[in-house]
Amino acid sequence: MSFLDRIRENNLWNPAGFRWFVVDGCRVGRVRHGLVPRLAAFGDTFIVESDAVHLNPRFTTFAARSAALDAVLKTLADEGIVKGRRAEYYPVTRSFAEPPFLQIERAGVPYFGTLSFGLHLNGFVRRPDGIHMWIGRRSRNKFSYPGMLDNTVAGGQPIGISLRDNLLKECQEEANIPKELAAKAVAVGCITYNHEVPEGFNPAVQFLYDLELPADFTPVNTDGELEEFYLWPIARVAKIVEETHEFKFNCNLVIIDFMIRHGLLAPDHPDYVAVGQGLRSPIVYS
Amino acid sequence: MSFLDRIRENNLWNPAGFRWFVVDGCRVGRVRHGLVPRLAAFGDTFIVESDAVHLNPRFTTFAARSAALDAVLKTLADEGIVKGRRAEYYPVTRSFAEPPFLQIERAGVPYFGTLSFGLHLNGFVRRPDGIHMWIGRRSRNKFSYPGMLDNTVAGGQPIGISLRDNLLKECQEEANIPKELAAKAVAVGCITYNHEVPEGFNPAVQFLYDLELPADFTPVNTDGELEEFYLWPIARVAKIVEETHEFKFNCNLVIIDFMIRHGLLAPDHPDYVAVGQGLRSPIVYS
Repeated sequence: MSFLDRIRENNLWNPAGFRWFVVDGCRVGRVRHGLVPRLAAFGDTFIVESDAVHLNPRFTTFAARSAALDAVLKTLADEGIVKGRRAEYYPVTRSFAEPPFLQIERAGVPYFGTLSFGLHLNGFVRRPDGIHMWIGRRSRNKFSYPGMLDNTVAGGQPIGISLRDNLLKECQEEANIPKELAAKAVAVGCITYNHEVPEGFNPAVQFLYDLELPADFTPVNTDGELEEFYLWPIARVAKIVEETHEFKFNCNLVIIDFMIRHGLLAPDHPDYVAVGQGLRSPIVYS
Repeated sequence: MSFLDRIRENNLWNPAGFRWFVVDGCRVGRVRHGLVPRLAAFGDTFIVESDAVHLNPRFTTFAARSAALDAVLKTLADEGIVKGRRAEYYPVTRSFAEPPFLQIERAGVPYFGTLSFGLHLNGFVRRPDGIHMWIGRRSRNKFSYPGMLDNTVAGGQPIGISLRDNLLKECQEEANIPKELAAKAVAVGCITYNHEVPEGFNPAVQFLYDLELPADFTPVNTDGELEEFYLWPIARVAKIVEETHEFKFNCNLVIIDFMIRHGLLAPDHPDYVAVGQGLRSPIVYS
């Protein structure tokens, strides 16, 4: 077990299990072959080819494409195929800076394998005995990854809200960090990975932030997504990342990146260069 | 002109112009096709194939391989083909952590296209009006990249000295940073790139360090490699990186990485993700 194992696990996927999801002639996702017969049964919403599923090009606008896909996803939710629907919409795009082709409800993202975006924040405290990091434990009732360890704050990036506003909102909801304190968070880069999940494929960009917290601040979850916070020495956090699967998969990469940037992983570590390279895998649609 | 252009320029090379350099059955470098006839004339030192030049496997030890290659490089220096020889040796390896196959004199590195290692340090000052960075100008008499802008401290990583000791040594020589101050430098990651130069091919790993300097400290070059230091607001440095070729090629990447880590490049910059991915290109021999 090693840091490099965590990177490999985040990037485990089998391209042979999927075909392209194409919108307006652009590859914007991947659909598991097993889902294709069900999609083909949706009349002319999709055009199915051996290596691709096209959203019918007769849907030419953002609104029409979004409505067509949402009708499909609602039906799949009614049939119990898509679980966890909650009316939170994500952009379908090949790059965060480009206008999206359409929007897709969050629970449907892995079924269509579109690129998703999110943010993760490392809340840390500098003590005389070194850096300590605030770690959350996800609620046992949470739909995804219940009970697993998590970063101080993390959330998806829905359509229609800026990264900065979403960061402030997530800081408030997940850790009760007031706006004035959250505004001191520093953008420090991103991680990217291509990850297969039972539902399908989930390539993602996670935007990263560091926030040095005052010694007397204690995060408190306000939205029921986390059940507890721990302030642990970074060496303890590192050991959990290196040797266990206690963290939700992508949180491991966030912490490894933090360790590299703060001189907590030595440059002569045998995997130093490979780890640095592996934290930002090429995304299949970029 | 953009940050992404700087990354592309660092990774410009034409694989078709080279064949493998192989030692002990392992691809450890690339030789320009044009140099091959001259190498073939060195008796049985090399075994030439259409897609590779092998160091003769009868050289089975580090010492024997190193001596064989050094004899070749001395002759090529005498003939004026290899320029700038100075008896500083680099490891020939596919990974910093692995024992090297042999050592090669620095000036010979690009002719054999072996992976080289180095370190770059960002010396910066936090002022009320923002981060300022110490930038060096390379001596006009320097063999390579004379007169170009450079990071505060930068140097190759020769064989036989630890990264940490080399960092302290380079800090002393290049900027007169005393050991006690240099020891506060924080390892913050690495950049990797595949770069073609007139002499051949130069894939490299540069280990990066940040050092926050006191406001009253002024770097002074002691080894003649730099002729001047400037303390510039980071916005001025960024503009030079983005819009000009005034910096030595790889120093641009060091500064772009610094900007990302310190929140000086916004996450919604159109190239943010591509830049983050591009700073650590896969190395051809890893």
